[in-house]
Amino acid sequence: MAAYLAADLHAVNTLIRTRMTSEHAPRIPEVTAHLVEAGGKRLRPMLTLAAAHLCGYEGPFHINLAATVEFIHTATLLHDDVVDESGQRRGRPTANLLWDNKSSVLVGDYLFSRSFQLMVETGSLRVLDILSNASATIAEGEVLQLTASQDLNTTEAIYMQVIRGKTAALFSAATEVGGVIADAPDAQVQALYDYGDALGIAFQIVDDLLDFQGDPGATGKNLGDDFRERKLTLPLLKAVAKADAEERAFWERTIEKGKQTDADLETVQALLSKHDALTETAGEARAWAARAKAALAPLPAHEIKTMLEDLADYVVERIN
Amino acid sequence: MAAYLAADLHAVNTLIRTRMTSEHAPRIPEVTAHLVEAGGKRLRPMLTLAAAHLCGYEGPFHINLAATVEFIHTATLLHDDVVDESGQRRGRPTANLLWDNKSSVLVGDYLFSRSFQLMVETGSLRVLDILSNASATIAEGEVLQLTASQDLNTTEAIYMQVIRGKTAALFSAATEVGGVIADAPDAQVQALYDYGDALGIAFQIVDDLLDFQGDPGATGKNLGDDFRERKLTLPLLKAVAKADAEERAFWERTIEKGKQTDADLETVQALLSKHDALTETAGEARAWAARAKAALAPLPAHEIKTMLEDLADYVVERIN
Repeated sequence: MAAYLAADLHAVNTLIRTRMTSEHAPRIPEVTAHLVEAGGKRLRPMLTLAAAHLCGYEGPFHINLAATVEFIHTATLLHDDVVDESGQRRGRPTANLLWDNKSSVLVGDYLFSRSFQLMVETGSLRVLDILSNASATIAEGEVLQLTASQDLNTTEAIYMQVIRGKTAALFSAATEVGGVIADAPDAQVQALYDYGDALGIAFQIVDDLLDFQGDPGATGKNLGDDFRERKLTLPLLKAVAKADAEERAFWERTIEKGKQTDADLETVQALLSKHDALTETAGEARAWAARAKAALAPLPAHEIKTMLEDLADYVVERIN
Repeated sequence: MAAYLAADLHAVNTLIRTRMTSEHAPRIPEVTAHLVEAGGKRLRPMLTLAAAHLCGYEGPFHINLAATVEFIHTATLLHDDVVDESGQRRGRPTANLLWDNKSSVLVGDYLFSRSFQLMVETGSLRVLDILSNASATIAEGEVLQLTASQDLNTTEAIYMQVIRGKTAALFSAATEVGGVIADAPDAQVQALYDYGDALGIAFQIVDDLLDFQGDPGATGKNLGDDFRERKLTLPLLKAVAKADAEERAFWERTIEKGKQTDADLETVQALLSKHDALTETAGEARAWAARAKAALAPLPAHEIKTMLEDLADYVVERIN
């Protein structure tokens, strides 16, 4: 798909580089270059470009919207860096270790404002409506995650709400605006939304799974980060749900009270294995990927449609 | 003006309360209520309401825009709380002491997204353009302040750029969109922009002055906070510019190196006095207030016009 969309992606990258500069505040591109150039896969902008092409769009604004989506994503990463105190992202130190929290917050705000300018330029109020709603949903998801972490009463329903917000909302907005800018029929726009939503959910479940079984060299993240941050992701929720009294005490100490030792991650892995938590989580990720593919049915036959189907497979193939 | 606009302000407050709630993340109103209800003067929303009335607007969207402006302002305060580690705001502990940095960042993001939704509802692309540009300018101003602080090479021109960004951009956008939504002639819209710009600059200069000569009981802020945060505001810049060798060494130690003792603030006050820095700063604030009043000339005679003139006087009357 990246090869097929190469010319568009080049235009998106050029637009991103142009718009992330600041005449008045040279610190800004210093911070953003680190994230924007760091070899991100440009997955979300590709979704917008693909959706627009699939619906026969021939105008220029899918480039704006793809850059918008990437800016919103990058702003979220910068703000995540502040809040999560995670040590690595994309295999490099996070921005807030290289610079500081202040820069991460403010440069994130700048990118968010720039994304807003980019979408205003399209002149489409419907697109603005979709992306402003998505932004609010992302923030809600992040706040919900904050209140839900460390709380063993968190349910899988709450987990779904969190990942729909923090991840799937931008995937579904990315695909939906591609259809909207192409003036596609409602059924196609809905199909694109459903695809993005299911793909985003699959993507995040896989991400949460790889936190326990990934290869840090490939994922660029430390194994067990979510556990250390006391985030109740799907694998942990499944193990907690089946905990006996002794295991429950373990989770209360490590997740609720946050009293962790270096040896605890090994116990976590053993409990995940004992309760088939990783296997079940992988099954759910595959089910959402299948739902994503099925959602594409109302869309016309097109080589991009096949690529989107392949993308859903690729997202879950990251599970080894 | 608050009395004249009472009915509108009531509608704005109701809209703010409705929109700051979150079905999915109950933590959000907890954090925002603290700021939004804390007796803010609603100065920025009043500017939008006043501008709209002055230009004869009779529709409903000035309420949306006034709430938008207050949400952007509140989001900025929340993000400022994270970055500045200031101990007080409006006489209460800041949100990040009551909750934490994470909540401040994410709830700020949520309010910013909500503000965006509110303005999309007006259906005016011109309004969206103005407010998205203002948001970017605010973030640029804040980042520029970050790089300029601690740097004794900062000039008054850079200071002006910073406060135009971090403060005046929202004032001028607030007045400008009031005129735009009322479909006022270009000359009037420009006059409203110029008034907001000059008023915002006067407001910020006064704020920076009160940091050295205000009554903490009245301002709700600690005396000398800017100095402790090594922010080169106008009073300090004027004293630094006239420093002899010994004074220069003092500024290098306290501002550049950040090595401060409790006794240093007294020295700062003495230097400000020696070099007439506070008097000169007060003079500049009054000049900008006068410019704000003069900018109103192209606008029709109206009791609100008189109120806006009085407001410019009021802003500088805070200097005792």
